[in-house]
Amino acid sequence: MADRRTIMLEAAARVIARRGVRGLRVEELAAEAGVSTALIYYHFKNRQGILRATLDFINDRAERYTTVRDPDALPLDARGELEQTLLLEFQDTAGVRENSTAWGELRASAVFDPDLREDLARATLLWVQEVAELLGKVHPMAGAGALAQAAERLTALLEGLSTRWLSGSLPLGHARTLMQQAIDVELARLGQAV
Amino acid sequence: MADRRTIMLEAAARVIARRGVRGLRVEELAAEAGVSTALIYYHFKNRQGILRATLDFINDRAERYTTVRDPDALPLDARGELEQTLLLEFQDTAGVRENSTAWGELRASAVFDPDLREDLARATLLWVQEVAELLGKVHPMAGAGALAQAAERLTALLEGLSTRWLSGSLPLGHARTLMQQAIDVELARLGQAV
Repeated sequence: MADRRTIMLEAAARVIARRGVRGLRVEELAAEAGVSTALIYYHFKNRQGILRATLDFINDRAERYTTVRDPDALPLDARGELEQTLLLEFQDTAGVRENSTAWGELRASAVFDPDLREDLARATLLWVQEVAELLGKVHPMAGAGALAQAAERLTALLEGLSTRWLSGSLPLGHARTLMQQAIDVELARLGQAV
Repeated sequence: MADRRTIMLEAAARVIARRGVRGLRVEELAAEAGVSTALIYYHFKNRQGILRATLDFINDRAERYTTVRDPDALPLDARGELEQTLLLEFQDTAGVRENSTAWGELRASAVFDPDLREDLARATLLWVQEVAELLGKVHPMAGAGALAQAAERLTALLEGLSTRWLSGSLPLGHARTLMQQAIDVELARLGQAV
């Protein structure tokens, strides 16, 4: 049997990417997932539970498409791993578009919905720590504070560029160029600070 | 007579900052502004016309609170002018919060609403050009391409940090610190590239 929880979360990400968080109704989600509303309440308790689980699901999925690689490819060095993690968020595939749209929408909705904030802050912190760790592999002598701040800037810039891309203000290729340059700038700065 | 168009646009920014773009109904806007729906249609034609005019209004207002200064203060140098323009977007005042919330919400809504995209892209371009000009005053020998890219990064980072602040993932003071560091990093890079 396919994992029904995963099916429901995939459906939630699709609905959010299509119509926004504020358009998300449990009845619609149930129809999209092909399950009963009772099953959704059983798994996630309430709307907040759905959103929290969807946030984690989106993060896990982003981690997969930014880290899984062709098994025949040469192993990446630390810098390559960092670049892959940040640049693969800018791909014109249905999966990345859907994931980025849903993440951006959860972020934007949290401005209006205090219930979302705590989960989002936690998910953001995890992401920042992951990127700080990758930066630290490139510059092992850099201080933890400097690494964390660079990671906060790179991930906040990624969110800003991604929303510009998805809202039609920035072509995808140019978003990648700007992100690549920001990585270069931050790595150079971390190297100098040692 | 007070300018009724301004009263309607102030009301639109308030409603968007309070309930989002998708919550904006012409009837509610009319009630908020204390005017008839007919007057709103007369001035803005349709919902898209309202959103377009509100976008311009929000930009003009941001320009005012990031550039108007105490007349007794010493004049700013080029770097000071740049820092003021970018850092004064991070102030815990009702006016800045409302303006930033409405801008972020228009940005986020454009992901779902293609009608908003062209106006938003135009407003974004104007903002990038303004910041590129300020960067150019600090480094008059830097190339136009390098200035534009630095301006795109700084304004996209500002949007990313601002949405994190407003969504409760980032304390205001820390957002300012990260923004200040990004300005330092980009200016240093523009100086080296000459």
